[in-house]
Amino acid sequence: MARLRLDISISLDGYVAGPNQSEEHPLGVGGEQLHEWVFPLAAWRGPHGREGGEVNASSEVVEESLENIGATVMGRNMFGGGPGPWGADPWDGWWGDDPPFHTPVFVLTHHAREPLVKQGGTTFHFVTDGIESALAQAKEAADGKDVSLGGGAAVAQQYLAAGLIDELGLHVAPVMLYDGTRLFDNLAGADIELEPVRVVEAPGVVHLKYRVV
Amino acid sequence: MARLRLDISISLDGYVAGPNQSEEHPLGVGGEQLHEWVFPLAAWRGPHGREGGEVNASSEVVEESLENIGATVMGRNMFGGGPGPWGADPWDGWWGDDPPFHTPVFVLTHHAREPLVKQGGTTFHFVTDGIESALAQAKEAADGKDVSLGGGAAVAQQYLAAGLIDELGLHVAPVMLYDGTRLFDNLAGADIELEPVRVVEAPGVVHLKYRVV
Repeated sequence: MARLRLDISISLDGYVAGPNQSEEHPLGVGGEQLHEWVFPLAAWRGPHGREGGEVNASSEVVEESLENIGATVMGRNMFGGGPGPWGADPWDGWWGDDPPFHTPVFVLTHHAREPLVKQGGTTFHFVTDGIESALAQAKEAADGKDVSLGGGAAVAQQYLAAGLIDELGLHVAPVMLYDGTRLFDNLAGADIELEPVRVVEAPGVVHLKYRVV
Repeated sequence: MARLRLDISISLDGYVAGPNQSEEHPLGVGGEQLHEWVFPLAAWRGPHGREGGEVNASSEVVEESLENIGATVMGRNMFGGGPGPWGADPWDGWWGDDPPFHTPVFVLTHHAREPLVKQGGTTFHFVTDGIESALAQAKEAADGKDVSLGGGAAVAQQYLAAGLIDELGLHVAPVMLYDGTRLFDNLAGADIELEPVRVVEAPGVVHLKYRVV
């Protein structure tokens, strides 16, 4: 049974982006600190088309997060297209010619458009009829593999609130952001029961994983 | 140099109490789940005057949190006295005749009163001139040992915002509360740099510890 998996970096105080997101600060002020643990890793650099890199306790966690993923779902801002708050080229997103997903990607949007085929196995499909439809299409495309939820926070919250996330991987950076976008917000009325899967302590990050039961 | 240490149980979504705190639900609805990991432990039962109990990976963490503590600071609601939202006997707090602190305890309040001497080494002192004064008095009383910050959240936030906490121990329970009192709130403008100390995975909880540098 295909599962929906969310892997996301988060500050100790619960933010997945800092305040004042802009073209200059797409992750908000200070938000880039959330991802400092991942950029040096060979396990991250490879899928992003770069050579070399480190191997440490996070490497297996990153490999695991990419394993058995057959499709991806993301929000419009994560794609970068359409009339967004600081919109890049509305028809191309900001992932370049060879995006790191290497799967079909289902982008939640209000603006219908034709699929956008990129190199390396990534095709962006634009879904205008809601999160359940996007998930159903992604599961269909994943063909038995799992679906990765790419974010951002608003989309993650919608899937959490709807009880549709099966596995939650939090990569907790040892930083405080004080303000910005919280992952766990707007969830009043949700009913999520967690089962701890594992904890990995690594340089500059603690990896927590929970199954939603 | 005496340090101020905060040890607190928190939900995965960042709450230290659930919504709708009341006499029936002093930790808010669902809040008691945050502490389920600690009650069965011999290391918790002993200082609370109870016999028996379990030993697991959390035992050392609890022992460590009690080690080298010479004084305690807490907020008025944590003491339970004074005209609180659902006030217990205003002159006695709700810790009984033999409170589990076994140190001088400095209670932040707006109502001056004489110290309250209990059994087992706990004396409650009431401080009306702010968090820095309470900390200074507690450090003086601790006589070289550390000071434990007992909570609640509002007091913890004030000390965090003022940069006065030296060590932060979070006991992350695998539960979601969705609403209630967040630990990390009202901190805009704070400037806290964290250094990871250690991670302990235990039944029903993950223990994170950070030093504030």
